[in-house]
Amino acid sequence: MLTKEKGVCTKFVQEFFMKNLKGACILGQSGGPTSVINASACGVFLEALKHDLITDIYGASHGIRGILNEELIDIRQENIEELELLKTTPSSSIGSVRYKLKDPSIDDTDYKRILEVFKKYNIRYFFYNGGNDSMDTCNKISKFMQKSGYECNCIGIPKTIDNDLVMTDHTPGFGSAAKYIATTMMELSQDACVYDTPMICVCEIMGRNAGWLTAASALATYKGFGPDLIYLPEVVFDFDKFINDVEECYKKNQKVLIAVSEGVKTKDGKYIPEALGEMAKDSFGHAQLGGTAQILADKLKNHFKCKVRAIEFNLMQRCAQHLASQVDVNEAFNAGSMAVKYSLDGITDKMVSFKRVLVDGKYTCEYELVDLSLVANDEKKVPLEWINENKNGLNEKFIAYAMPLIQGDMKAPLEDGLPRFAKLKKILANTNR
Amino acid sequence: MLTKEKGVCTKFVQEFFMKNLKGACILGQSGGPTSVINASACGVFLEALKHDLITDIYGASHGIRGILNEELIDIRQENIEELELLKTTPSSSIGSVRYKLKDPSIDDTDYKRILEVFKKYNIRYFFYNGGNDSMDTCNKISKFMQKSGYECNCIGIPKTIDNDLVMTDHTPGFGSAAKYIATTMMELSQDACVYDTPMICVCEIMGRNAGWLTAASALATYKGFGPDLIYLPEVVFDFDKFINDVEECYKKNQKVLIAVSEGVKTKDGKYIPEALGEMAKDSFGHAQLGGTAQILADKLKNHFKCKVRAIEFNLMQRCAQHLASQVDVNEAFNAGSMAVKYSLDGITDKMVSFKRVLVDGKYTCEYELVDLSLVANDEKKVPLEWINENKNGLNEKFIAYAMPLIQGDMKAPLEDGLPRFAKLKKILANTNR
Repeated sequence: MLTKEKGVCTKFVQEFFMKNLKGACILGQSGGPTSVINASACGVFLEALKHDLITDIYGASHGIRGILNEELIDIRQENIEELELLKTTPSSSIGSVRYKLKDPSIDDTDYKRILEVFKKYNIRYFFYNGGNDSMDTCNKISKFMQKSGYECNCIGIPKTIDNDLVMTDHTPGFGSAAKYIATTMMELSQDACVYDTPMICVCEIMGRNAGWLTAASALATYKGFGPDLIYLPEVVFDFDKFINDVEECYKKNQKVLIAVSEGVKTKDGKYIPEALGEMAKDSFGHAQLGGTAQILADKLKNHFKCKVRAIEFNLMQRCAQHLASQVDVNEAFNAGSMAVKYSLDGITDKMVSFKRVLVDGKYTCEYELVDLSLVANDEKKVPLEWINENKNGLNEKFIAYAMPLIQGDMKAPLEDGLPRFAKLKKILANTNR
Repeated sequence: MLTKEKGVCTKFVQEFFMKNLKGACILGQSGGPTSVINASACGVFLEALKHDLITDIYGASHGIRGILNEELIDIRQENIEELELLKTTPSSSIGSVRYKLKDPSIDDTDYKRILEVFKKYNIRYFFYNGGNDSMDTCNKISKFMQKSGYECNCIGIPKTIDNDLVMTDHTPGFGSAAKYIATTMMELSQDACVYDTPMICVCEIMGRNAGWLTAASALATYKGFGPDLIYLPEVVFDFDKFINDVEECYKKNQKVLIAVSEGVKTKDGKYIPEALGEMAKDSFGHAQLGGTAQILADKLKNHFKCKVRAIEFNLMQRCAQHLASQVDVNEAFNAGSMAVKYSLDGITDKMVSFKRVLVDGKYTCEYELVDLSLVANDEKKVPLEWINENKNGLNEKFIAYAMPLIQGDMKAPLEDGLPRFAKLKKILANTNR
């Protein structure tokens, strides 16, 4: 009993202490761009500016590397108008990174350096915005701080167009990318059928293991202007079935629009460029993988002897802020501001997660917390029961899931007919202290 | 004197007659899609509906081929709400075609067939919407009708994202494509610089002979978020100079964003895939040309040993109605309605052309007329004095020219967060008459 009471007492003292931490906060952006990463940054910075407990506000230049290199952008020196414009500025304005921290039990050099920098700048609030790799980074840093006895509330903010994070209904960035993909598919369906000659068009969409983004093209089909066939990495790709599927559609009016994930694999577990492509070699003799869409288009051209186009949605699908979903922008912003609020409440070692709640049948989002360790390095795929019987499209369950996430428009204000993005000064904090 | 007076008299009678022609009108859409071709169709149809002289209103299914095949869409059977939605529906809703009429002095079969169909349906107003090839078609039909003594007012309506028509300040479709290219370039500039590692990105933009679209990427540079280097087909492409240009930019921060026209040619007059690509062969042994951006990206990768991305703007640049310029949509609509008004005034054998007029320094557009024969088969290029000294960018003259054309937003109304495009019934006119 005594132990337990002592435990409770210690926990109380610790929580009280963690709750009234006075110090600086820092945000790091990590992983691939989305249209709304900066909306989360905007949420963090504007919320942090409201609280006296938070002294300095830093942006880590290029995520964790900015901390290791002691390159901390002093956010208090930015104009508030520019910080507000971050809400509608795509990509990562303070710079992103792909950096995997080592297991601290094997090599804790980076962790010690991070602790050193945190101590030097009295950083007591650490926010890390990214996908599952980034949540792993956040989790490792959080655990190291705890182990070191350094009070610092660490909160992960989800982000990824791939929508593959577990323990959250969806991720910020997905709704806007889905809106881009569905809208673009609708437009392409108008373009691809314009002539009275046969036409097959293969569109390649991002997503190495999870097919959420490719599935979003089904929203266009649902509206009557979308792809005839959709292939996700969740289903083994069979080339003969693919040709049969296309033939079925081709019979109707010689127009076929196809959406395919870059991540589809054959039954041998090979990506299309490995399985079907003629691998070119670069000057070093390295194999160069062609695009999935281009390889499939070439195969279809040989089979159907008609015009076949390959289209890669490429980087546009992850940075087309002009097509951002209002729901997505607002949720990303809220994820950032909630992270600050929770951290000031003494919360640490958690990721902000999204819970879908229907109020009178209307979609709303609530912001909950999940253990970082449960999110790190896991991934969520499209449920197989949301895929149609023919394994080449999505059913109404996916539509019901995705449709609320693409609602509304929230793009950057226009200046001269073009987006007015945030222009940050990015003045680094003085390292002499 | 008598002859001259007789001539004047005949002209008067003829004009009076041409002015009070009672009969059907027909619109054909021809050539590659733009975001605003249907806005011109909307202008034609809504204007035609206002006038008692115009009996039936037809849309030629797939342009001139619809006339030859006697597939005439009966526009009076469409819902007015759907016709209004054409204003913000991309591509060619009644179907486009690439069909080149023969010289009538060599083979007038098609012309006779067209005349036959015109007579059968009492078509007295012919509108053809397209680029320079289509204006050639319109010109040939116009001349044949005149020669045959069949009264039919023929008016061309300009259209092309390429902006390469002569005798007009600009063409409908260019402004929206330019806005797409500039906006997308701004977004890509945010994406391409996100990591702290070197990155070169080569974007390929449409335009086989004229560089207007590629030049539009300079609008992004003007706003501070655009390509560092821009290569137009108006300038001979020199690979060594290209590498030097990239090296100059690369020195600064190892981030280079490049816009290149698919139409750039080396001094031998070869396109990049011919000059630098390793031409693959398809199963028939035909040479397959790779993309210009991909080939240049591969060369840069070998030279700089860093990450290099190739991005093709592909079909999106010509059908991204969600980024349509309001100026462009309205001008395209007006070009259509003015064509109807002019034709009812007895005008024939002309194309509606755009004249830029500055009123108190503010851009406005006036709708004039030019002879079809002057427009047909000619093309307008970017003036060399609008290109910078280094031949890898545009100067302020281009910015002043292009900026007014991309102003304002006019996209399709949203339904479920996605565009609501026109849905036409496309009921064909009864061929038994």
